[in-house]
Amino acid sequence: MSPAAFIDAIQQELQRTQYGQYPPELYDPIRYIMSLGGKRMRPLLTLMGAYLFTDDWQKAVRPALGVEVFHNFTLMHDDIMDQAPIRRGQPTVHEKWNHNIAILSGDVMLVNAYELLLHVDADKIKAVLSRFNRTAAEVCEGQQMDMNFETRWDVTEAEYIDMIRLKTSVLLGYALELGGLIAGADPESNQHLYEGGVNIGIGFQLKDDLLDVYGDPAKFGKQVGGDIIANKKTFLLIEALEQAQGDVRDELTNWLTRTSFDKAEKVQAVTAIYDKLGIREITETRINTYFERGFTNFEQINADPARKSLLSQFARQLVERES
Amino acid sequence: MSPAAFIDAIQQELQRTQYGQYPPELYDPIRYIMSLGGKRMRPLLTLMGAYLFTDDWQKAVRPALGVEVFHNFTLMHDDIMDQAPIRRGQPTVHEKWNHNIAILSGDVMLVNAYELLLHVDADKIKAVLSRFNRTAAEVCEGQQMDMNFETRWDVTEAEYIDMIRLKTSVLLGYALELGGLIAGADPESNQHLYEGGVNIGIGFQLKDDLLDVYGDPAKFGKQVGGDIIANKKTFLLIEALEQAQGDVRDELTNWLTRTSFDKAEKVQAVTAIYDKLGIREITETRINTYFERGFTNFEQINADPARKSLLSQFARQLVERES
Repeated sequence: MSPAAFIDAIQQELQRTQYGQYPPELYDPIRYIMSLGGKRMRPLLTLMGAYLFTDDWQKAVRPALGVEVFHNFTLMHDDIMDQAPIRRGQPTVHEKWNHNIAILSGDVMLVNAYELLLHVDADKIKAVLSRFNRTAAEVCEGQQMDMNFETRWDVTEAEYIDMIRLKTSVLLGYALELGGLIAGADPESNQHLYEGGVNIGIGFQLKDDLLDVYGDPAKFGKQVGGDIIANKKTFLLIEALEQAQGDVRDELTNWLTRTSFDKAEKVQAVTAIYDKLGIREITETRINTYFERGFTNFEQINADPARKSLLSQFARQLVERES
Repeated sequence: MSPAAFIDAIQQELQRTQYGQYPPELYDPIRYIMSLGGKRMRPLLTLMGAYLFTDDWQKAVRPALGVEVFHNFTLMHDDIMDQAPIRRGQPTVHEKWNHNIAILSGDVMLVNAYELLLHVDADKIKAVLSRFNRTAAEVCEGQQMDMNFETRWDVTEAEYIDMIRLKTSVLLGYALELGGLIAGADPESNQHLYEGGVNIGIGFQLKDDLLDVYGDPAKFGKQVGGDIIANKKTFLLIEALEQAQGDVRDELTNWLTRTSFDKAEKVQAVTAIYDKLGIREITETRINTYFERGFTNFEQINADPARKSLLSQFARQLVERES
C-alpha cells in the first residue's frame, strides 16, 4: 500500500459524490468549494487510520469524505465571518455568489457531511457520530475563540494553544480516530490515534505560524510576513508580547499600533524583535514537543509496525514541510 | 393521556438541556432563542406519533427536542438572511449579538440537534438520521427557493406549494414520523404519519397566508394585511396574479409597484381585488383539500383509534386556528 492508492480512492469518491441538484444556487457552491482542491489531508488520515487495522480500508472512503466536506463547510462559513475575498486563489463563495447563499449552502453542506458519515457499519454509527458531534462543536468553539482574540491584547499562550487545538487539531485527531472506529480498532488504539492527531495538528499549526515569518520565500506559498503585516495573533506574537520588556516592548507595541507603515520595513523590524527575544527557538522547541508527543501516541497504537510506519512517514512529511 | 403531559415533558427537557458552555458568545444565543417560546408543535407531534405505538413515549422526548432545536437553528439563520430585526417580540440573535455570532451559533445548534437525535435505540439511529438528513436538506432547499422567489413575478402555484412543502411541511411530517420510528411502528404507518404531517403542514401554511388577509384582527396576533403591505408572495397573491385580467390586473400591478402608498389603503384595495377574484374561496378550498388528505393519511395508520383521535384532535386545532 502507498498513500497514492488512498489519494486515488479519495479523488474517485470526490468525483462520484452528488451533493444535491435543485435549486442550483444551493448546491453549485458546494461543488465549487470542493473543486478548489487542497491537500485532502483529513480523508487521507482516515484511510491511514483504517488501514492500520484492516485490509478493507475502502469502506472508510465515503465517511472519510464526510470529514473533508465538514472541513470545507467550516471554510465556507469562516470566510464569511473573516470577510475573506480569496480561498485557494479563487473567489470565496460569498464573493462569487452572496452572503445568504454562503450561509445556506454551508448549512446543507454540514447536513451532507452527516449523511456521508452515516455510511459505516450499523454498529459503528453511534460512536462515529457522537465523537463527530463533540469534534464539530469544538471546531465552532475554536472559531469563536479566534474571533474573540482579534480584539484582545492579553491572550495567553495557553489560551492560544487551546484555540488552535479546538479550531483545527481536534478534527485531524477525529479524522484518524474515525479510521480506527470504522476498522473496529480497540478503544485504546483509537484514543492514541486521536491524541496523536491532535498533537501533530497543534505542531502543524504552530509550524504554520513559524513559516509565515521564517519560511523560505522560494518555497513558502504565501507572502512571508503576512501575519506580521496584519497584526495576526500568532504563537510568535503572543510569545513576544509575553517576553518583551522595556524598549523592546515599546518598539513592538509601536509597530502593532501604527496605522501607516512600509510593509517590508514592518516585517523586517518585527522579525528583528522576534530574533532578539529568541522567539524562533522557543517556537521550534514547542513544535518539536507536540510532534514528539504525537509520534509517541502513534507508537502506542496496537497495530502492525509496517502499517504504522506509513502513518508515521506521512506525519513526518507534515512535520518537515516548508510550505 | 392528554397533550398537557406531553407539553410538560417537553418543557422539562428544555429546562434540563445544556447546549454548551464556553465560549459564552457561542452558546448564550442558543439558550436565548430556545427561551423565546413558541408552540413547540414539532416535539409535540413527535410525542404524539410515538404514543400511537407505545406507552413508553418518554423515550422520544430527547430526540423530539432535537427537532425543535433544528427548527430554531433554521429560524436563527433565516433571520440573518431575511434581515429580520424581531423574532417573537424580541431582538433576533444577529441584532442582539452580531451576524458572525448568529452564523456560528446556528452552526453549533445544528450539531446539537444531531446530538439530541442520537438518543434513540441503537438499531433506530440509521433510519432516524437518514430520514432527518433528507428532511434537513429539503428545508434548506425550500429556504433557497423562497429567497429566489423574492425577485420573481412569475412564480406558479405549483412552485409555491413545492416551496412551502420543503421549507416548512416536511419537518412537520418528519416530526411525526420520528415518533413512529422511535416507537418501532411498521413502515406503512410511518409513511402515513409523514405524509399526513406534510399535508397538514401545507394546509397550515396556506391558512397562515389566508389569515394574514382574512384573519380576525381581534384574534390574529400580527397586523392584518402585513403580507399585502410587503408584497409578500403568498398563495393569495400568486393565485391573484394567475387569475387577474384587464383592469383588475392593471390595478393589482399598480399596487405592487407603487413605492409610496397609504398602508391601510393598499390593504383595503388589494383585499378588494382578492374578493373580486374569489381568492378567499379558492384558498379555503385548497386548505381543506390538504387538511382532508392529511386526515385520510392519519386514518390509515395502524394504531389504536383512541390514540389516533388524540392526534386528529390536535391536527383539528391546527386546522381551526385563528391566529
